[in-house]
Amino acid sequence: MSHNTFGHLFRVTTFGESHGPALGCVIDGCPPRIPLSVEEIQADLDRRRPGQSRYTTQRQEPDQVKILSGVFADENGRQVTTGTPIALVIENVDQRSKDYGDIKDKYRPGHADFTYDVKYGIRDYRGGGRSSARETAARVAAGAVARKVVPGLVVRGALVQMGPHKIDRNNWDWDEVARNPFFCPDAKAAAFFADYLDGIRKSGSSIGAVIEVVAEGVPPGLGAPIYGKLDSELASALMSINAVKGVEIGAGFGAAELTGEQNADEMRHGNDGKPLFLSNHAGGVLGGISTGQAVIARFAVKPTSSILTPRLTVDRRGGETDLITKGRHDPCVGIRAVPVGEAMVACVIADQFLRHRGQVGETGHWPTLA
Amino acid sequence: MSHNTFGHLFRVTTFGESHGPALGCVIDGCPPRIPLSVEEIQADLDRRRPGQSRYTTQRQEPDQVKILSGVFADENGRQVTTGTPIALVIENVDQRSKDYGDIKDKYRPGHADFTYDVKYGIRDYRGGGRSSARETAARVAAGAVARKVVPGLVVRGALVQMGPHKIDRNNWDWDEVARNPFFCPDAKAAAFFADYLDGIRKSGSSIGAVIEVVAEGVPPGLGAPIYGKLDSELASALMSINAVKGVEIGAGFGAAELTGEQNADEMRHGNDGKPLFLSNHAGGVLGGISTGQAVIARFAVKPTSSILTPRLTVDRRGGETDLITKGRHDPCVGIRAVPVGEAMVACVIADQFLRHRGQVGETGHWPTLA
Amino acid sequence: MSHNTFGHLFRVTTFGESHGPALGCVIDGCPPRIPLSVEEIQADLDRRRPGQSRYTTQRQEPDQVKILSGVFADENGRQVTTGTPIALVIENVDQRSKDYGDIKDKYRPGHADFTYDVKYGIRDYRGGGRSSARETAARVAAGAVARKVVPGLVVRGALVQMGPHKIDRNNWDWDEVARNPFFCPDAKAAAFFADYLDGIRKSGSSIGAVIEVVAEGVPPGLGAPIYGKLDSELASALMSINAVKGVEIGAGFGAAELTGEQNADEMRHGNDGKPLFLSNHAGGVLGGISTGQAVIARFAVKPTSSILTPRLTVDRRGGETDLITKGRHDPCVGIRAVPVGEAMVACVIADQFLRHRGQVGETGHWPTLA
Amino acid sequence: MSHNTFGHLFRVTTFGESHGPALGCVIDGCPPRIPLSVEEIQADLDRRRPGQSRYTTQRQEPDQVKILSGVFADENGRQVTTGTPIALVIENVDQRSKDYGDIKDKYRPGHADFTYDVKYGIRDYRGGGRSSARETAARVAAGAVARKVVPGLVVRGALVQMGPHKIDRNNWDWDEVARNPFFCPDAKAAAFFADYLDGIRKSGSSIGAVIEVVAEGVPPGLGAPIYGKLDSELASALMSINAVKGVEIGAGFGAAELTGEQNADEMRHGNDGKPLFLSNHAGGVLGGISTGQAVIARFAVKPTSSILTPRLTVDRRGGETDLITKGRHDPCVGIRAVPVGEAMVACVIADQFLRHRGQVGETGHWPTLA
Repeated sequence: MSHNTFGHLFRVTTFGESHGPALGCVIDGCPPRIPLSVEEIQADLDRRRPGQSRYTTQRQEPDQVKILSGVFADENGRQVTTGTPIALVIENVDQRSKDYGDIKDKYRPGHADFTYDVKYGIRDYRGGGRSSARETAARVAAGAVARKVVPGLVVRGALVQMGPHKIDRNNWDWDEVARNPFFCPDAKAAAFFADYLDGIRKSGSSIGAVIEVVAEGVPPGLGAPIYGKLDSELASALMSINAVKGVEIGAGFGAAELTGEQNADEMRHGNDGKPLFLSNHAGGVLGGISTGQAVIARFAVKPTSSILTPRLTVDRRGGETDLITKGRHDPCVGIRAVPVGEAMVACVIADQFLRHRGQVGETGHWPTLA
Repeated sequence: MSHNTFGHLFRVTTFGESHGPALGCVIDGCPPRIPLSVEEIQADLDRRRPGQSRYTTQRQEPDQVKILSGVFADENGRQVTTGTPIALVIENVDQRSKDYGDIKDKYRPGHADFTYDVKYGIRDYRGGGRSSARETAARVAAGAVARKVVPGLVVRGALVQMGPHKIDRNNWDWDEVARNPFFCPDAKAAAFFADYLDGIRKSGSSIGAVIEVVAEGVPPGLGAPIYGKLDSELASALMSINAVKGVEIGAGFGAAELTGEQNADEMRHGNDGKPLFLSNHAGGVLGGISTGQAVIARFAVKPTSSILTPRLTVDRRGGETDLITKGRHDPCVGIRAVPVGEAMVACVIADQFLRHRGQVGETGHWPTLA
Repeated sequence: MSHNTFGHLFRVTTFGESHGPALGCVIDGCPPRIPLSVEEIQADLDRRRPGQSRYTTQRQEPDQVKILSGVFADENGRQVTTGTPIALVIENVDQRSKDYGDIKDKYRPGHADFTYDVKYGIRDYRGGGRSSARETAARVAAGAVARKVVPGLVVRGALVQMGPHKIDRNNWDWDEVARNPFFCPDAKAAAFFADYLDGIRKSGSSIGAVIEVVAEGVPPGLGAPIYGKLDSELASALMSINAVKGVEIGAGFGAAELTGEQNADEMRHGNDGKPLFLSNHAGGVLGGISTGQAVIARFAVKPTSSILTPRLTVDRRGGETDLITKGRHDPCVGIRAVPVGEAMVACVIADQFLRHRGQVGETGHWPTLA
Repeated sequence: MSHNTFGHLFRVTTFGESHGPALGCVIDGCPPRIPLSVEEIQADLDRRRPGQSRYTTQRQEPDQVKILSGVFADENGRQVTTGTPIALVIENVDQRSKDYGDIKDKYRPGHADFTYDVKYGIRDYRGGGRSSARETAARVAAGAVARKVVPGLVVRGALVQMGPHKIDRNNWDWDEVARNPFFCPDAKAAAFFADYLDGIRKSGSSIGAVIEVVAEGVPPGLGAPIYGKLDSELASALMSINAVKGVEIGAGFGAAELTGEQNADEMRHGNDGKPLFLSNHAGGVLGGISTGQAVIARFAVKPTSSILTPRLTVDRRGGETDLITKGRHDPCVGIRAVPVGEAMVACVIADQFLRHRGQVGETGHWPTLA
């Protein structure tokens, strides 16, 4: 990953600011002849779209995506990828830039205002400009394409903690994720979060969260040691999401507390004669290479820094001041980070899948083991 | 990062297996005219060197590094970098490959044996081959060079947790780190760890750990949003270290439990008239760009999977078996991961420093803020 | 360069097909605070625009460029780059896709029809799809930005040969380039080319050409040996232009015929006390690094393969057939390759300028020579 | 390609100076389980080795290569690649550095002395340091590995012009190439070159040359448009060889003189039912993608700048002087560039082969055409 591109063979470059004319991405290296409709991409975008409940920002963005290139009708009239760059564009519609006049010259604590100014000496201050989480719409669009690259891949995310409150993993039900506004797999926790977050929201405050992404159907062998390890790239991809402060794979930080006996995932053969792991502390990755088990990653999202309580800060001209952040914001940005996390995991796996196929070939060397 | 290279302008490519003739690295893109002696690199390697206490593997490797290229005498006879690739080689000396005959065809649970075989259909099984943490000697050598690229940069690491036992941060003393065999900044905790790890070691078990790396003197403005963010690259670099399962920046996973009021780092002006943060939940990074504060990263290391208790596993030929891992191993690989973590952080910052200078120029745009 | 991106720190990714909704590019890594207006980019695009004389395709494309991101008003209200991705989009307007129904399943000899089909198993056959030279509009737009990155840089191109007919270099007048439809610096040759190309055009044939690009104001020291040499990257960039079959630097293929005495560019000091070359066989590049002289590159463009004389070919279904290429075409594609060549040279130099600044710093090490 | 690395999936990083302790390369991304012996690599190196006839430098370098990593015994005891980095090292033996004391502070015209000093402010002046063609030994070693990556690939090079004297292509005999010290496929021309070059050598002069490289067995479909085109990468790779000033593919600069009728390669079906080109002006590449025909590239090598006639120059301290270049040199560096050109072509094709397989899969989409 570098600058505004991530991936090596499946490469995604995003562009656009929160209040500019449009944002989007160019997906380069997508394999050809993959059926792809604008509706599929839209479906993923709709999951991330703001303004769908009182728990997310009230900015009303239809987030309608257009395909500018890279897709064409095949012999049967079906729209498929052509192997050339797929450009996707989403127009910004509901910009209330005047909300941001106040912060033109002030640095909002916890935001990237100060660091963008230090780095570039100029910034689009409207809604955070390039540093806005609005950029993640482009990632979700790219992720919708990435999901189709690896046959059988299923990537799903869920909010597993809000503030200090963790879900009960015994209640985990993937179907529940679509039924509540928190992408929460535990119906009981979701009910609790509704009240809890109402309180946060009404007080003009905000709260952090933890998200878990699970990728099933990941073929064994993906990952390019030493410095393109699957887990290393997942860490990079998830940490690049706005407001993320931590990433862990499998047992994660919990692994620090385990002994070797507890942590090692033992092996046997399954009914199909294939090697089988008896547990998954590894989170589906050993030595940076996928094991064939579910790949499991979690990431921590800090509370949005846009709150109604005044915070001390400085301005561009050397003055000291304080600031409350008006405008429309998510009281828990972690919620809408769920589809973004899924998209990033899908992009990493798609890219590793192609790189693996490049180095090792379609079939891999598994047969030589027999 | 890709394959066996990390970095963009300051690029490090490593090579070598645990029991091959040699391992090493090629550092490409290092700025010219930086004084560099073999002794400086050796000093860092000596900190990571095995066999220095009973708490690390008893393999006796002198880890003597040789410089093959990229350094030449300047007008004053001082050895300096020339801007061309710096090749460093470390010979393997103390290989007891016969220790590994047993595991030639068996997959050690928790190790990369299985995944390397799935991916490549062949592996150097001696001591883990390429997947061995011995590769990190090459990283430490590269890190010794990276440290010199950014004027004023100081990168220090410390072990802050072993198993479930955390140090007392009130006892933090950087000088203490060099005084105990655990790189532990808390003398009292170090004394406890000595006993604790003796117990682990004698029982043939192993234990995880958490390491914290602090980089001071990082200029503000480093980081290439969106997908080359400083924290994103730190996450990638640290997660690429053997056995690491989690990475966090600043408040990290703790940020998920905070409110916006608690988490935002307020700003004032310092005595020098420069902007000053009143706290550092951000860990020195906002929007993927360094703030000028200390950059703080932590990573979790799982217990080494090489233990003396038999674990269930399978072999290359489809059989089921069990396995104890003989050979020489670290009961807590987290200890020797400390200098490795420092090296990775130094490499990331050196690379970002050069990329930043490339895009923005020597002076940056800070003056335009005045 | 890889896939659809070129450059390392100044990175350009293009997208779009000849008859799709739009084409464009994302420029990533452009330094901040460079004044940039849509009119400047448009001016370069207008030089490449089709339909401006009877010597180029009659397709009427306004080639109106829109800036979607990366530019914002500075303190003085001037539009400047922000250091974030600059997305540029050009809508396709004059698509007569029905012209191409005939060739849907046939491979036009000399075109990329066959190879795209072999590689991807699908292609947008309308006007060549992604392989169309229409993609070069996006390059020219990017080049307009690149030109502004290096202070003092002037990149100019000229057609120096059409078919077997070379211009008289004694007549070279840069001002003449803008006065004839051939970008020809020799007024007399331009008059000849007018008649000559009329003949070619009327007979439904086509003809090749040679273009020379001269970059002045290139600072000494640019180029990243060994595999990112300035001349190596120029060769790559120019060879990537549609229909280009050869590239040379300085004396080029002529250097093969010279002796060491003839070829070596001797040195003296100039009036300003700086080193000065007495000739420029090197074309401004020694050892892959710019000398400070004019950088001179030439490239050969084959005749367009779209001609009215039937050529033998095969079709997608295994049949043998022949083909004449209708549609609108350039009888000498070399003409409109002139601004494209300029753009590519500007992009390479901009990228090398930033990379050089990254590795070596703003001032370089020149002062140490004194 | 960037800095000292070329390739994307098959990546080669070289290091080393002419008179340093050693030079070598790290090959990263090589597919696993390819049989590879040190003898195979040595065989290629021996073709490039200096001191084998009176027509090349008399420096006596055994160029013995050592494999430090990436190769291991398979189940049958055969040495094969493991998919991990292959490090190759060649020690420098016959360094007469004192030959270069004279030019320590002077810039040899036509050499990279001046530009390295301008860029880096320091250089290893002994034998050209990093800018020496001695670096190409590492390329040849890498090429020996690359040749084995693509099944059925045969890459051969030949010297086709020395000074103004071209070979007679009707006399072309590949077997002849190994029989004369010029890699010349025309026995009659070789005899002429022997006398011609003796004259050049005895007068202390030097002369340029043109080399042609032909790659057979290149599967159709290789090449990553737009900016990773096969011909674009060949141009880059060949132009990166020391002293190369021009590159052309297929008809090359000659294509500029052709009409569309002359240049288009017509198609029919062959006896095997597969598409067949009736000529190869394209040099095996259309739209940047291989056609399945032989890939044909030529490059021009300038005369070595090391000659015995004094040339005007300047020194590091601002003085004006003149210079003759003593030391041991090739009167026609083009000769030993033949195996280097082969190596670069093999590396590019190997890399494109892996990237193609990554994006499109093992079988490609050819079957869909039926």
